[in-house]
Amino acid sequence: MSLLTVGSVAFDAIETPFGKTDKIIGGAGTYIALAASFYGIDQKIISVVGEDFPKAMLDQLESRKVNIEGLQIKQGEKTFFWSGKYHNDMNSRDTLVTELNVLENFDPIVPESYQNADFLMLGNLSPQVQSTVIERMKNRPKLIAMDTMNFWMDIAMDDLKKTISMVDLLIINDEEARQLSGEYSLVKASKIIRNMGPKFLIIKKGEHGALLFHGEKLFYAPALPLEEVFDPTGAGDTFAGGFMGYLASTNDISFDNMKRAIINGSALASFCCEKFGTERLTMITEQDLTKRIEEFVSLANFDIVTSTSSTQRQTVS
Amino acid sequence: MSLLTVGSVAFDAIETPFGKTDKIIGGAGTYIALAASFYGIDQKIISVVGEDFPKAMLDQLESRKVNIEGLQIKQGEKTFFWSGKYHNDMNSRDTLVTELNVLENFDPIVPESYQNADFLMLGNLSPQVQSTVIERMKNRPKLIAMDTMNFWMDIAMDDLKKTISMVDLLIINDEEARQLSGEYSLVKASKIIRNMGPKFLIIKKGEHGALLFHGEKLFYAPALPLEEVFDPTGAGDTFAGGFMGYLASTNDISFDNMKRAIINGSALASFCCEKFGTERLTMITEQDLTKRIEEFVSLANFDIVTSTSSTQRQTVS
Repeated sequence: MSLLTVGSVAFDAIETPFGKTDKIIGGAGTYIALAASFYGIDQKIISVVGEDFPKAMLDQLESRKVNIEGLQIKQGEKTFFWSGKYHNDMNSRDTLVTELNVLENFDPIVPESYQNADFLMLGNLSPQVQSTVIERMKNRPKLIAMDTMNFWMDIAMDDLKKTISMVDLLIINDEEARQLSGEYSLVKASKIIRNMGPKFLIIKKGEHGALLFHGEKLFYAPALPLEEVFDPTGAGDTFAGGFMGYLASTNDISFDNMKRAIINGSALASFCCEKFGTERLTMITEQDLTKRIEEFVSLANFDIVTSTSSTQRQTVS
Repeated sequence: MSLLTVGSVAFDAIETPFGKTDKIIGGAGTYIALAASFYGIDQKIISVVGEDFPKAMLDQLESRKVNIEGLQIKQGEKTFFWSGKYHNDMNSRDTLVTELNVLENFDPIVPESYQNADFLMLGNLSPQVQSTVIERMKNRPKLIAMDTMNFWMDIAMDDLKKTISMVDLLIINDEEARQLSGEYSLVKASKIIRNMGPKFLIIKKGEHGALLFHGEKLFYAPALPLEEVFDPTGAGDTFAGGFMGYLASTNDISFDNMKRAIINGSALASFCCEKFGTERLTMITEQDLTKRIEEFVSLANFDIVTSTSSTQRQTVS
């Protein structure tokens, strides 16, 4: 199966309590494609960079089976740049610089060879760009997933709701779910959001794991408690990439397989936080990932036989 | 097996966004004993009330196999009273009134018949009272567990650390773990706290579940996402009571059985939040609890065969 990702390929400069970087490679599309590349699937990416973007990085994507025909290189223009500084608790950050550059007038091209992609991941971008890609696909993919952020809720809620109505799965964090729904309770928020269109909803809660909602079904995936979060930049995109890569490689969008996909995404995201930017992600081996997934199994696994234990219980009336 | 609980038996007045109560029955000891009573074990309680405390509540405890020989009734004195108001997000609250009354000079009596209790739960009280009870036991219980709160860290840290050094298991919330250890990362905090004495540590994270630490082992228990948290008062004590009641009834303090005990405690705590005070807790049937535990199994369960999935993965180097 093939995965088409739409997302920024960009430069980031990051400051955390542990240090700071110069301009390094970032962008939602980059993290998603790198994470999904663990699953040996054919990938395609729709994005845009300036002439200042290093060809070596594009070569690296191609070497991981990511087709870059839909990645536009704009001569005479500059790549999107974001700079941010994390607070001491690593749970919040300030944006220092946002230079849209090539993203300002991004018109996504969907090449002929992309039109039959099986899975579509819409990384965080303007909802207008996201819906345009869906409209330009010849066939509806088996699953369309979408990420977004509070920024678009603030300035483009109508466009955003239109795009949300077109997708199967929305992946957002807890604060975004609360803002989008106007409800503090995530259970209530999940109902309102799924009434907007998506049959599936994943709410990411950072160090507190992630929730998957579908119909009356609910899954709570733990996050691996980490000694140190060195740099959380890209962790959410890495999660989405691992999730979609796993789904595409198994070609199974059942609820039970989505659980497994979430554990895969969470495992990759936990690596992502260990170094700046994409550094750790590009060094993970198959053994590393297998071991990390086993840690998740051990972390979350428990064994209760309710019929046995209930015989020891008293009814209180 | 028998469980001895030390904890307040008290009056509360609670205000939440959903309503407010007059003086109702509360206190850590009450919640712990009621929750543990689901497991059909012999219980004993050490506490103190004033002459204003209703005899009907003491009768109710006795009807649930809670021996109250160690519960002192002080003639001419008044029962401990706490009043609090929850904020709209239900994650924080203001204390409106604290009347220590009988707790001010509480000298815990440990009757002869309590001296061989198998399990000891020290509910949140002054660390001085908690350590006195341990010292007055003839035999060391199989497991001594202890709850505490930030209040004691602020005013009696030395006493608190002494008491912590005497117990096997500490049960606190995430903010308390951070304050006690001086570390934001819960993984780092858990190491520092376990170096203070307890071999086991449970960190409660409210709506985000709970973590159990022991040696190199780690378990992440989910909390059941609730549509509404009506009143969280006593949820932490209910968790502890369910946890210790389950351990005592199974007489097994292995890590795997503690996982099951946490799920039981979490299930009872989720009921506790559905009504004011102890109201919901006293109405739960055996069927209710079994059904709720099955919800936890479904919530947390996933099935990954790492050796199979790894064959589909590419090594990135």
